[in-house]
Amino acid sequence: MIIRILGSAAGGGFPQWNCNCRNCADVRAGKPGFRPRTQSSLAVSRDGKSWVLLNASPDLRQQINDTPALGSLAEGSLRNSPIKAAVLTNGDVDHIIGLINLREMEPLTVYGSDRVLATIAANAVFNVLDKGKVARRELPLDQPTNLAGADGPLGITVTAFAVPGKVALYLEDASKGANFGSEAGDTIGLEVRDEATGKAFYYVPGCAEVDARLGERLKGAALVLFDGTLYTDDEMLQAGLMPKTGKRMGHISISGPDGSIAAFAKLGVARKIYVHINNSNPVLNESSEPRKATEAAGWEVGYDGMEVRL
Amino acid sequence: MIIRILGSAAGGGFPQWNCNCRNCADVRAGKPGFRPRTQSSLAVSRDGKSWVLLNASPDLRQQINDTPALGSLAEGSLRNSPIKAAVLTNGDVDHIIGLINLREMEPLTVYGSDRVLATIAANAVFNVLDKGKVARRELPLDQPTNLAGADGPLGITVTAFAVPGKVALYLEDASKGANFGSEAGDTIGLEVRDEATGKAFYYVPGCAEVDARLGERLKGAALVLFDGTLYTDDEMLQAGLMPKTGKRMGHISISGPDGSIAAFAKLGVARKIYVHINNSNPVLNESSEPRKATEAAGWEVGYDGMEVRL
Repeated sequence: MIIRILGSAAGGGFPQWNCNCRNCADVRAGKPGFRPRTQSSLAVSRDGKSWVLLNASPDLRQQINDTPALGSLAEGSLRNSPIKAAVLTNGDVDHIIGLINLREMEPLTVYGSDRVLATIAANAVFNVLDKGKVARRELPLDQPTNLAGADGPLGITVTAFAVPGKVALYLEDASKGANFGSEAGDTIGLEVRDEATGKAFYYVPGCAEVDARLGERLKGAALVLFDGTLYTDDEMLQAGLMPKTGKRMGHISISGPDGSIAAFAKLGVARKIYVHINNSNPVLNESSEPRKATEAAGWEVGYDGMEVRL
Repeated sequence: MIIRILGSAAGGGFPQWNCNCRNCADVRAGKPGFRPRTQSSLAVSRDGKSWVLLNASPDLRQQINDTPALGSLAEGSLRNSPIKAAVLTNGDVDHIIGLINLREMEPLTVYGSDRVLATIAANAVFNVLDKGKVARRELPLDQPTNLAGADGPLGITVTAFAVPGKVALYLEDASKGANFGSEAGDTIGLEVRDEATGKAFYYVPGCAEVDARLGERLKGAALVLFDGTLYTDDEMLQAGLMPKTGKRMGHISISGPDGSIAAFAKLGVARKIYVHINNSNPVLNESSEPRKATEAAGWEVGYDGMEVRL
């Protein structure tokens, strides 16, 4: 199985259009040790020919152009694409708007929770994906789903599972209490399994907490791509960027006693990669102490174009 | 006034993700004489400091990153952007989805017709633009509107005018007759005037026909950026790409007795630039006969990053 990080940044990307924080200013100026990053998305393939997108970021057109394997094939028909399916982990615009790029009558299957599919149905802009060509299939929680494109099965099974989190920002409803109307399944992780080899990895780009249930699930995994939004829970507050903590945004931090480094310490995961990294995160500076501490703890910091084979 | 083409391609861009036509295959392969193009958008500024977007394409994040003048300023505050306003010419996803990139609480004014603003209001994904920060202002037809950002006037006046055209594809309603429910103002052109110098240009990225009224308006203009979607009315049909003519899609062709070269021949426009160029258009091949004929007729073929001063 080939796993390729198309976009390793959180919403807004790196740099973020309107952000002049140290990190964004440095990457915009081309300072060494800073690498631009597009927004959160992976591509997965069993054979290198048919690909599945895990999330569809607003940067998808650029990501396809930067990834020759995802472009229309010169040896194919007049209209063709190696992208056969897209699996959406939540309704964040960072994860769904890229679907708009997948129009032009190309057969495709879009998988998402009932809530994500309802969001797509409720926004007419997504009607540019012709319903006669682009199937929308519900991805039920805790049930293995054999992914298929219009031409048939893709040899990849995905199992969605709820993780601690929060509903997408623009769908928050303050009248619905402390969790803003979030429901189980608003934030999901994916187990992605190669049906031929049985090998699997986990993709959890948004997660508020590694609770006992999630820890049990990830224990001993060969590979986890995990929420690396923030290094410290209050880094956006401290930087004056946003009056919200990571906890309020539904994102666990990397460091600290409640952070993901600590939570994964005893899980025995063979390879651990941070994705969905916010522009405020000091690990984006390759010579920073947080970056060194993160790598010393056995984690890799994902980057656009990074490829893992399993 | 500085006019910069951010994206010179029609919807889908060049190459288009799923297209293996000769043009797309050649540009994807990096063949000389073919230049990649992002989707339709301009940026305009009177002083080079404050900018107005004319349409917001799905490629906007990439376009901002490719245009240093549009990035957050290193000498500015922690969060800042030179982009102060966006003017939308219609509800095509190619022209509105880029707004999604302009979130993160940055003050901004979005101008559009009542129909375009209604489309944005009806699609909750656009709620990521905080209504308290991002003003949505109606752009009335045939009335000069002095553009203003949150900090004040921008020194640019825009006058929207209806041009022959069609409602956005995903809003078509076949039950409403031959024009699919299109209404006056679904496709507009813009006159953009520098309030200090009085100089003006016209931006008409979609147009089905240069009728007498439009011809009268454009007569003697200093600069027109015009719909260059197709070279011949049936080129997509002929190439097997789409069972629709340009006329059906609401786009005049460049060549032929009903084309824009012929229509502009006697208008005395000083500088004429094609934008919104579809990937099927042979003018994208710099060594093609259609390209030579277009240039011989006094037209320029717009490209991403092209800058004109007026």
